[in-house]
Amino acid sequence: MKKYGNIMYRWAQDLWPICRSLTGEGVRITLNYIQNLLPELVIHDVPTGTKAFDWEVPLEWNITDAYIADEFNTRIIDFQKNNLHIVGYSIPVDKWMYLEELEQYLFSLPQYPDAIPYVTSYYKKRWGFCLSQQQRKQLTNQNYHVVINSSLKHGVLNYGELIIPGRSKQEIFLSTYICHPSMANNELSGPVVTTALAQWLEGLGNLRYTYRIIFIPETIGSIVYLSRHLSTLKKNCIAGFVITCVGDDRAYSYMPSRHGHTLADRAAKHVLKYHTANYDTYSFLERGSDERQYCSPGVDLPVCSIMRSKYGEYPEYHTSLDDLKLVTSEGLQGGFDVLSKALMLIENNAYYKTKCLCEPQLGKRGLYPTLSQKRDKDIYDMMNILAYADGEKDLIEIAEITKQNALDCLPIIEKLIHAGLLEEIKY
Amino acid sequence: MKKYGNIMYRWAQDLWPICRSLTGEGVRITLNYIQNLLPELVIHDVPTGTKAFDWEVPLEWNITDAYIADEFNTRIIDFQKNNLHIVGYSIPVDKWMYLEELEQYLFSLPQYPDAIPYVTSYYKKRWGFCLSQQQRKQLTNQNYHVVINSSLKHGVLNYGELIIPGRSKQEIFLSTYICHPSMANNELSGPVVTTALAQWLEGLGNLRYTYRIIFIPETIGSIVYLSRHLSTLKKNCIAGFVITCVGDDRAYSYMPSRHGHTLADRAAKHVLKYHTANYDTYSFLERGSDERQYCSPGVDLPVCSIMRSKYGEYPEYHTSLDDLKLVTSEGLQGGFDVLSKALMLIENNAYYKTKCLCEPQLGKRGLYPTLSQKRDKDIYDMMNILAYADGEKDLIEIAEITKQNALDCLPIIEKLIHAGLLEEIKY
Amino acid sequence: MKKYGNIMYRWAQDLWPICRSLTGEGVRITLNYIQNLLPELVIHDVPTGTKAFDWEVPLEWNITDAYIADEFNTRIIDFQKNNLHIVGYSIPVDKWMYLEELEQYLFSLPQYPDAIPYVTSYYKKRWGFCLSQQQRKQLTNQNYHVVINSSLKHGVLNYGELIIPGRSKQEIFLSTYICHPSMANNELSGPVVTTALAQWLEGLGNLRYTYRIIFIPETIGSIVYLSRHLSTLKKNCIAGFVITCVGDDRAYSYMPSRHGHTLADRAAKHVLKYHTANYDTYSFLERGSDERQYCSPGVDLPVCSIMRSKYGEYPEYHTSLDDLKLVTSEGLQGGFDVLSKALMLIENNAYYKTKCLCEPQLGKRGLYPTLSQKRDKDIYDMMNILAYADGEKDLIEIAEITKQNALDCLPIIEKLIHAGLLEEIKY
Repeated sequence: MKKYGNIMYRWAQDLWPICRSLTGEGVRITLNYIQNLLPELVIHDVPTGTKAFDWEVPLEWNITDAYIADEFNTRIIDFQKNNLHIVGYSIPVDKWMYLEELEQYLFSLPQYPDAIPYVTSYYKKRWGFCLSQQQRKQLTNQNYHVVINSSLKHGVLNYGELIIPGRSKQEIFLSTYICHPSMANNELSGPVVTTALAQWLEGLGNLRYTYRIIFIPETIGSIVYLSRHLSTLKKNCIAGFVITCVGDDRAYSYMPSRHGHTLADRAAKHVLKYHTANYDTYSFLERGSDERQYCSPGVDLPVCSIMRSKYGEYPEYHTSLDDLKLVTSEGLQGGFDVLSKALMLIENNAYYKTKCLCEPQLGKRGLYPTLSQKRDKDIYDMMNILAYADGEKDLIEIAEITKQNALDCLPIIEKLIHAGLLEEIKY
Repeated sequence: MKKYGNIMYRWAQDLWPICRSLTGEGVRITLNYIQNLLPELVIHDVPTGTKAFDWEVPLEWNITDAYIADEFNTRIIDFQKNNLHIVGYSIPVDKWMYLEELEQYLFSLPQYPDAIPYVTSYYKKRWGFCLSQQQRKQLTNQNYHVVINSSLKHGVLNYGELIIPGRSKQEIFLSTYICHPSMANNELSGPVVTTALAQWLEGLGNLRYTYRIIFIPETIGSIVYLSRHLSTLKKNCIAGFVITCVGDDRAYSYMPSRHGHTLADRAAKHVLKYHTANYDTYSFLERGSDERQYCSPGVDLPVCSIMRSKYGEYPEYHTSLDDLKLVTSEGLQGGFDVLSKALMLIENNAYYKTKCLCEPQLGKRGLYPTLSQKRDKDIYDMMNILAYADGEKDLIEIAEITKQNALDCLPIIEKLIHAGLLEEIKY
Repeated sequence: MKKYGNIMYRWAQDLWPICRSLTGEGVRITLNYIQNLLPELVIHDVPTGTKAFDWEVPLEWNITDAYIADEFNTRIIDFQKNNLHIVGYSIPVDKWMYLEELEQYLFSLPQYPDAIPYVTSYYKKRWGFCLSQQQRKQLTNQNYHVVINSSLKHGVLNYGELIIPGRSKQEIFLSTYICHPSMANNELSGPVVTTALAQWLEGLGNLRYTYRIIFIPETIGSIVYLSRHLSTLKKNCIAGFVITCVGDDRAYSYMPSRHGHTLADRAAKHVLKYHTANYDTYSFLERGSDERQYCSPGVDLPVCSIMRSKYGEYPEYHTSLDDLKLVTSEGLQGGFDVLSKALMLIENNAYYKTKCLCEPQLGKRGLYPTLSQKRDKDIYDMMNILAYADGEKDLIEIAEITKQNALDCLPIIEKLIHAGLLEEIKY
């Protein structure tokens, strides 16, 4: 596997301080950074008010500064120190208020006293500050100056789209999101691993499938994207992955598609089984990212997720503790490895059929020992591929039945095709 | 749930002393009593000798008195005290005989010394007395006077039939039996719970389905009924239940249809799972009531049973100990509750489909919190219904997949339909 | 079950000393011996060089003598004492060589010091001696005289074929092999049990199916046979068994067909379940005999194996310890019994359907007790057959569902057909 861990980690460091949200300058800076790494990336603008199924693109939100200052004008809570301090999509405010009144605008987590929570209010006009329980306890009953320099205006929603063409019009779809402020596993791991996968795919060249890779704001972004590309995706997409939470090094996990039987699911489960001693399988009832849209009734794209520690399932999730200590170079590399294996498997997955009736005489081709003694596992693996290559099973099914890693079957299959004993069947 | 427990128990007390059998006055008195509660009930006569598939209606049996008296004319065993004392369908007899000869006509249960067993001989002319092992031990080697004042004559087989019309010609079928003498769980619980269900259904009004409810003698009654209505039932019946053993308060149990996959089975299992912490699942190999006919090859109606303690599986079964101490008001209410829930579920079971692509924006309809914090279970339940309402799954399947009680889904579905987000699909 | 154990054991004793291989005089002597027991057996010749799919018939190998003698001309290793001493298909040799040079031509098993291993080299010209580790240790560094009087010449491959005609053109296929020298479970048990089955089938007369029984060299023999009869077998064969390793008395085992769902598999598993308290189920991944050809993609005959201790799974396998102490009269009888039961089951397996709607009135036919008391298991078994005989299930499925031994159902089914209550459905 290509070593992308360190470079991915550096990208995450660069992207860390940017204040992203559904819309706004932070998203554009992030997409420009990625475009620098993937020059073919196209950045799209979708105007506020554009309809997308049951939704419409919201006002664009931008923020330059925000703080709570005490009577001596000392900033007690400061957006410049951590962009999580502000409730996402907060409207502008400039007011003095006593602690008692301020309380209703404050969000903290008693059970995690050091953590600043991540809170948003995209669709109802509101403002608020997030702070750690520690910070909150230090507030006293005085008059505070509350300032948010934000704007909510007609503007655009941005997303990035990269098409890497392959020999076939059939597509593999990768979707990641760029709408969270400074959080690492549940945000930056997604775009940096996706960027690395895109670079790796471009480097491979001569791809069988076309790759459609998008960097979108979660939920509204996938809904907008689907509203523009649904018929193409339904026609061409054979497998896809929502890439999220692929940066810590504590677990591997899998979120199925709605029915759990797509090619993406089969590849994900096969690859995970051979990649790690154990991984967590979640139910679609525990979904929470853009598979909510991609797998919704009538959309039904073959999309699932391969993750490290799943969103909602680790204590640092959606707080300031989901940071670049939690995400590591090794964690990101693991996310890259398992996803690249899944893509490699789908690229090479095919229906194979033996070309002769009965077992071929492997001995005369130098593929079988001439002395009748204990055969080694390699011989059995090859014989088993031939035994199940009946044109009705794809590589993943053959590998599952014969208890082999499908990726390890690839050189054997190549050898058998070369020897004229096996052929790929096109359906 | 409507409280019918006490009234059902009183009906059972009223019906207790009547000597019922396949045919005869006891059956008619019982049906008249029920007709008084359900005025639309039609009581049918089927003459002796009428053919029904492989069977024919037997002679009508009536009995006025029977006893074994000792040499001093003291009644030792007396039909007037307990109608179980006489073997059902006993021919008349009036003889003196010594104990030695009498023994072959006596039936008792050594393992239950206080219990009078229930024995019948419908299809071979015979007579006999049933008594407790205690009573039997007190018989001495003297001359006994054995009298059975019974008659076996050309007459009729009676059954009751109630049709409660609904908006659809499709039918729900309820069948219970009225052919056992004084026994409570394995007899009276069936007709009294069925009567209560019929009253409840009539009270609901505006029913979707038509309800066909019959009170028949077991086996010959269901065979006769099927011989007259099979084509209608096969065309219209979408689900049915044999209602038997629904009166004690010790267990819940389920007897599947022959293949176990009908709508009735699915509703029964779903309702039982949420109604009780655990219930006993029997195999169709352990069948014993009219599902033997309803599920026979070529008949194949979608009929199963939801019971309290199943026939044949409790020690008092088919003895005088199956009495109105065993059956309780609470037990009957539990039987009523679980069956009425199953009927309610079938009434409301339908195929649903979301009306927009992707998740709808619930927030703008006040159905979703505007602040991105922990959602409660209600929100997830609603989202999960929307996620699986793809027009290919009925409510029971959606509820099973999303791990909800389908009956709890009904108000959510109503809300979603009202909001224009969901529709029922007719097939 | 017919007692064939002792006679099978005597046949095995007679066949023991013969030096069999893929081809040659030993195979012909063996087939002639079997022809003596089965006069209708036809012995076929297939010339060297005949093409069969990816293979061709090899040169015919014969051997008259072979030994390693010391400087005093004393035979240290002597083919006359045990034909396993020579590597199968060894080319002729007559040389003096020191132990150091000889070593590369010697095969022994350090882990089984008393066992002479069985080694062959059919498709690469080679020579070699097999000996026990004990014998090997006694060799000293002297000059040995190595002699193999063998020939490898244009000749024939022989196999035996017996067709026992039945009322139907549909066939049951039995295949066993006659290509191993003196080994008992993994060779002689196969042909002797197959011979006994053939005699038994001939004795039964009036068979429903035609039986095709072949005695072939393993691998090349089945490939040659398939190359001549594939279309007939694919058209007519409804079930088959590779008969091998059916002679020891330590275990029963089952090797499925490639997909494991054929009639042969279903019969094998049903019969084994009732024949023995437990048996070993292997995976097709552990295959090793002619099912490798019969179940290969495109051939796909419904063939599996019922065995005693499976090849490769017992310590004596492919050594001189697999002898007539390991195989016993009782072991062979067990192999015969379970295979003859499987054949009997397939002969009698059919789709049955009840002839009346609802349960028939068994009482009037004397098939049901007239008094309503505890029924015995026989009655339930009969009722259960009637309940599941819907014309869509064959006997094996009915027996599996109703938890009965299908062979025990046969007299019940006969009784029901005789009573006009059941009929066989032809598809």
